[in-house]
Amino acid sequence: MNQDTKHPTTVYLGARDIARIVRRKGLGACIADVARRIERDFLRWNDFDKSARVACHSEAGVIELMPIADARDYAFKYVNGHPRNTLDGLPTVMAFGVLADVATGVPRLLSELTILTAIRTAAMSALAARKLARAQSRSMAIIGNGAQSEFQAIAFRDLVGIRELRLFDVDTAATAKLAANLVGQGLKVTVCTSTADAVRGADIVTTLTADKQLATIITPAMIEPGMHLNAVGGDCPGKTEIDRGVLEGAAVFVEYEPQSRIEGEIQQMAADFEVTEFWRVLAGERPGRTSAAQVTVFDSVGFALEDFSALHFARDAAAELDIGSIIELVPRSADPKNLFGALGIEAPAGAAREVPAPAGANLAHFG
Amino acid sequence: MNQDTKHPTTVYLGARDIARIVRRKGLGACIADVARRIERDFLRWNDFDKSARVACHSEAGVIELMPIADARDYAFKYVNGHPRNTLDGLPTVMAFGVLADVATGVPRLLSELTILTAIRTAAMSALAARKLARAQSRSMAIIGNGAQSEFQAIAFRDLVGIRELRLFDVDTAATAKLAANLVGQGLKVTVCTSTADAVRGADIVTTLTADKQLATIITPAMIEPGMHLNAVGGDCPGKTEIDRGVLEGAAVFVEYEPQSRIEGEIQQMAADFEVTEFWRVLAGERPGRTSAAQVTVFDSVGFALEDFSALHFARDAAAELDIGSIIELVPRSADPKNLFGALGIEAPAGAAREVPAPAGANLAHFG
Repeated sequence: MNQDTKHPTTVYLGARDIARIVRRKGLGACIADVARRIERDFLRWNDFDKSARVACHSEAGVIELMPIADARDYAFKYVNGHPRNTLDGLPTVMAFGVLADVATGVPRLLSELTILTAIRTAAMSALAARKLARAQSRSMAIIGNGAQSEFQAIAFRDLVGIRELRLFDVDTAATAKLAANLVGQGLKVTVCTSTADAVRGADIVTTLTADKQLATIITPAMIEPGMHLNAVGGDCPGKTEIDRGVLEGAAVFVEYEPQSRIEGEIQQMAADFEVTEFWRVLAGERPGRTSAAQVTVFDSVGFALEDFSALHFARDAAAELDIGSIIELVPRSADPKNLFGALGIEAPAGAAREVPAPAGANLAHFG
Repeated sequence: MNQDTKHPTTVYLGARDIARIVRRKGLGACIADVARRIERDFLRWNDFDKSARVACHSEAGVIELMPIADARDYAFKYVNGHPRNTLDGLPTVMAFGVLADVATGVPRLLSELTILTAIRTAAMSALAARKLARAQSRSMAIIGNGAQSEFQAIAFRDLVGIRELRLFDVDTAATAKLAANLVGQGLKVTVCTSTADAVRGADIVTTLTADKQLATIITPAMIEPGMHLNAVGGDCPGKTEIDRGVLEGAAVFVEYEPQSRIEGEIQQMAADFEVTEFWRVLAGERPGRTSAAQVTVFDSVGFALEDFSALHFARDAAAELDIGSIIELVPRSADPKNLFGALGIEAPAGAAREVPAPAGANLAHFG
């Protein structure tokens, strides 16, 4: 959807629009495109005005705002995390976001980001695994088979070369759903009976659980030399998945350290526990995996820059495919100083439309 | 617009919808309604999870996110401030916002807030002036005659009893626009030749200038005993309107002190310069004006709670008048764990829709 850049109009992409983009382009192609954009944006890390997201916690969950900007574009995402939502038929995670012009503040794109968050999270995970997992990784355990799991499976198939999946979830219906969705996708799928069963022998272990608690889904006894852990589910204070003993014996990589110290698996560790920001690995400043036996952990919490990349993907894909609609989120007015006039209020009956003359003859006009 | 609360649907109110609500109810009635809601919400100040807004500054302006929540509702506003926008025919301030359920994170309302920000700012100013200006105030100077000015004029007419306005702006066309818009509104309007001319003899002085600089629109020489200053325009770091000498001789009231120390007129003052949060005056905890000769200043920067109140007004007015539309900002799915399924991707050709059997006989199922 193209727009008139001279007026404060906004392109709107609802959930159906993004689903249509994914169907037209293919899910794998969308994930690969977003991964390329994330890589490009992470490689210009210092161009961005970054901050840890602003969270509002309640007993039931969390609602967060994630702003970020470069010199041209401002982006933010609204996202919630409510683990018990699924009991009421609602998604655990819902999101939407905006791209705006830094130069004027005009919101140019308003898009759903529930689907796009799943896509960008999977893209980010696969991008990290390409640098951190062993080169010949072919099998992956997926612990937690909810809304994010298919996206991770496709991303790791296409971008990392995973051919075999070992699935486990305490909710067996979720596992059955994931297995059914993956039929015909070129992946050998094994349904497992426990986390330990799923993890055994896997090259990569992806954790996608949603409980808002300090859980220890992955314990030191499960870890084998050379494994890469893609820890996605632990992403807010009081929410972890990996036993601290696992972290102690591993090389740990994060997205944006100030945020990960608060939200990530490393919230369990001392403030000086060594971690590496992943962009430094992409940039060649720091090594990724240094030996075949090393255990690596990507402690992913989700960072605003990934949504910045995803919003640009959505904007470009919508323009290319002519999907979306124009909304009038901001009032249009011939005179921007006449917001009152934009309301279209009729003048009071009998009101003469004359302007009183200035009290003084010389009108002051400064700069 | 009513909505199905069992599904994650969102009511959308664009700029035209809010303008329609204002035309149907009348601008004065809308301001009065929002003022009542702000008063009610300020009186339960401690129910809210408050924070200073998150600002992203650039050379051209600022983009801010303003979140707030009570136990039931989460609200945030996106708002920009770009003083040079009007040169390109764009508004200085554009805003929109969201109301969401704290219990589930579902975004229930997405509304324009450009018009509503003007309404809530005027409502807040008038509410403060009712407690802080002299009881018999009849005349008001308005310095800065842009987009916000008509709203302040109507609010002070209806809620404070102002009958005479003295207008000044360096942009004489803006003053002419304001004067024209106020014809027939029951206000005596005088166009003035300078700030000093406009301020002279006024009971209340409202400043609505937009420059992002440390300006001194109001100097000590202009101040007369008993004046109330409603300082609205200075609202971000490096942006002030009132000379510090004026503040030194006045009783200063703010919305939310942690934010005002950064953004308000009081950014010019020492960190221990005494100010009073206005909610304490409403609650009877602190006095407002204590003598007829006292100079009072409402150092208004705009606080998220006012937008919370305005969003509730919009929600209720839209439901009452059946205005707005339902959007699918969040994907609907029969199974919330099946986001992939909600994409509507067809199964690969030839794929059997069978689910592989579990590897073990006994499926583990915890909690």
